[in-house]
Amino acid sequence: MLMEFSIIPIGIGSSLGANIAEVLKIIDASGLPYKVNPMGTVVEGEWDEIMKLIKKCHKTVMKSGERVVTTISIDDRKGKPNRIEGKVRSIEKRIGKSLKK
Amino acid sequence: MLMEFSIIPIGIGSSLGANIAEVLKIIDASGLPYKVNPMGTVVEGEWDEIMKLIKKCHKTVMKSGERVVTTISIDDRKGKPNRIEGKVRSIEKRIGKSLKK
Amino acid sequence: MLMEFSIIPIGIGSSLGANIAEVLKIIDASGLPYKVNPMGTVVEGEWDEIMKLIKKCHKTVMKSGERVVTTISIDDRKGKPNRIEGKVRSIEKRIGKSLKK
Amino acid sequence: MLMEFSIIPIGIGSSLGANIAEVLKIIDASGLPYKVNPMGTVVEGEWDEIMKLIKKCHKTVMKSGERVVTTISIDDRKGKPNRIEGKVRSIEKRIGKSLKK
Repeated sequence: MLMEFSIIPIGIGSSLGANIAEVLKIIDASGLPYKVNPMGTVVEGEWDEIMKLIKKCHKTVMKSGERVVTTISIDDRKGKPNRIEGKVRSIEKRIGKSLKK
Repeated sequence: MLMEFSIIPIGIGSSLGANIAEVLKIIDASGLPYKVNPMGTVVEGEWDEIMKLIKKCHKTVMKSGERVVTTISIDDRKGKPNRIEGKVRSIEKRIGKSLKK
Repeated sequence: MLMEFSIIPIGIGSSLGANIAEVLKIIDASGLPYKVNPMGTVVEGEWDEIMKLIKKCHKTVMKSGERVVTTISIDDRKGKPNRIEGKVRSIEKRIGKSLKK
Repeated sequence: MLMEFSIIPIGIGSSLGANIAEVLKIIDASGLPYKVNPMGTVVEGEWDEIMKLIKKCHKTVMKSGERVVTTISIDDRKGKPNRIEGKVRSIEKRIGKSLKK
């Protein structure tokens, strides 16, 4: 299953880089396959292991602030492993062209 | 903390009412404070209890289909209980007018 | 078509009430059918009229800050008018029970 | 400003690849800077030009189905151009490590 998530600390100023860096360190250390993009991070795995990771990231950001808004999008499809690489590749195959990633 | 979530079964046709009804029965039976709206359901509680509920709803819909897309938005604010009633009420107070709910 | 949206000013502190009140005043004055909930506002209408409203709300909040995060969810279904009332009502009919709103 | 969006046709089966390919062709032809990821596409530009693109994509998918769910996340920050490259790069600089993209 794929989950994309994004964590926004509210009320600490408009530069969120220090918090986001801390979150990415946790994700990178988790061992789960991930891909970071300018609006969030996509992680592949089972429900419980990804949710444990997101909770850890959310709670870490919450420590340094008073309010945190986190959004999660889940795409769960039976019998489809390695979708973190496969989804975009299959679109490129259909189009017959490499896309910007 | 508040979480709004929405569960969409993909590939079972464009009428999702039977699945959504099943999900709402589970939410209503959970005992957690909730409010349903035309685009999702807002639940108030602690991280683990709400996530347990969302997982149960997601897995229930997954049973009857091959693919499910679930989205979750979390608003976590320290020291603010009963926000499921309080957030909209405090806006109405500021505006001095009752809003459509 | 239904759109739910939520506008979060970043970096102005953790209390967002004044900004949200301003947004709700604009929505309420728009004349479009809407329903506010603790996590956002659902509006019913055509693409262009709702997007014009959301842009106005987003730009208004942007005036008083440096960074704004806005999320929009769109549910577009052919030949289904008055879904802002009808969606929840049809679920209640299926369940045979009134839900919390 | 950055917008990430994702378009899901409902009721046409669980394989959405043909529709997504059509959407990506439109995005790629738009000339706007974009990055595709396994859960959506991030585009950089001004409000009106990105919204025109998203509307075109949404309407194209709507032609071949009865129901479409589209989600949009907007991150608008004053005086920050080229964030589609810069956001992730600045996180990598802070961490002192290249992230998976």
